[in-house]
Amino acid sequence: MIKKSDVLARKLGLSFNDPGLLKVALTHRSAGAGNNERLEYLGDSVLGFVIAEALFQRFPAAGEGVLSRLRASLVNQNSLAELARDCHIGDYLILGAGELKSGGFRRESILSDALEAIMGALLLDQGVQACRDWILTLFDGKLQALRIDNWDKDPKTRLQELMQAQRQPLPIYELLATSGDEHAQLFDVECRVDACPQTTRGSGVSRKKAEQMAAEAMLNLLQTLNQ
Amino acid sequence: MIKKSDVLARKLGLSFNDPGLLKVALTHRSAGAGNNERLEYLGDSVLGFVIAEALFQRFPAAGEGVLSRLRASLVNQNSLAELARDCHIGDYLILGAGELKSGGFRRESILSDALEAIMGALLLDQGVQACRDWILTLFDGKLQALRIDNWDKDPKTRLQELMQAQRQPLPIYELLATSGDEHAQLFDVECRVDACPQTTRGSGVSRKKAEQMAAEAMLNLLQTLNQ
Repeated sequence: MIKKSDVLARKLGLSFNDPGLLKVALTHRSAGAGNNERLEYLGDSVLGFVIAEALFQRFPAAGEGVLSRLRASLVNQNSLAELARDCHIGDYLILGAGELKSGGFRRESILSDALEAIMGALLLDQGVQACRDWILTLFDGKLQALRIDNWDKDPKTRLQELMQAQRQPLPIYELLATSGDEHAQLFDVECRVDACPQTTRGSGVSRKKAEQMAAEAMLNLLQTLNQ
Repeated sequence: MIKKSDVLARKLGLSFNDPGLLKVALTHRSAGAGNNERLEYLGDSVLGFVIAEALFQRFPAAGEGVLSRLRASLVNQNSLAELARDCHIGDYLILGAGELKSGGFRRESILSDALEAIMGALLLDQGVQACRDWILTLFDGKLQALRIDNWDKDPKTRLQELMQAQRQPLPIYELLATSGDEHAQLFDVECRVDACPQTTRGSGVSRKKAEQMAAEAMLNLLQTLNQ
């Protein structure tokens, strides 16, 4: 009899020495002990490394900030869930009764976690080279599609474009205070966006610099919330 | 003539095929182009992976949350700067004039970044296995010294112990609001510590649960600020 997880392994182009590992990787915590949380932790770390290295090689002129932003654009819940759906991982998840009823096999976080857990399982089963090769194959399309032009822009421009892409109102910058002497003023600015309940602040020797700093902080906050 | 960076390589137990990589790893951005920022980005990612994997193996019963916290306790600016000092990396840094004057070779962030950049250089020079072996040797003492008992505690206890360890006043929890019917109340709590200019919030069906959530958020915030 062919097991369900063997079918998935074949679809993923994988062959596990220990097929039990793949089963654990597909087991959501709602199904109880022996779930994929530890494998997800492991997979998340190897994925971060593999993509960082791939971007480093692919964009030899990009600075650290650009590389970090490129990685965050590839490695996030949205993009991982999309890849998981492409691989039909949802059909093979092992969920508890509650999650099963409420459609957990479609939930972005569950799909994304399971995909990372599969990476962790592969790392344990076949070592870092095989795991890296598989991750790079999986991300090949996304890596090829990356263009660096968008990532060199300043924080205010990036935040504005992000809000436009999400059909959100534009960010609002409010001057909170100025301090210091006339020739050495310091500006304090707050940034607000509808997409985020928290505000961020920036300060600088010009209003524009303070706004850029507040925008950068907001981008980081939104990224953290999205992870 | 023996180059300065060769002396450091020997101290670190390393022999680079391309010694130029080690030189770049030691070059702070204050010294201009050809600095270590890209290598630091690469090193940071491989370090995160190697330590995650080591903890996964060493603590087979630890959950994902505990593993993440253990990793954050090993991989942070403080602990990396300490290792960098043990290796006397400060003596070999290449700094710009300003940083040189202001004692940049002692700065925690500069030391920590340089150590990560050396990991990135080693990855490029000798591949992931050699890099992993070196990182594990470097962290051996810290890994051996880890005890898991402390990491299973609840967030309020951990935050309190963190403040005590840093000789800071204890965290303050303030009830901001309660809402909802009497039999289904929701509590909103704010957490403040002297070590952090920002406050965090938590909400829950009991005051205690709200406080735990606010404490967890504060621990995460402090960790982010410390990175």
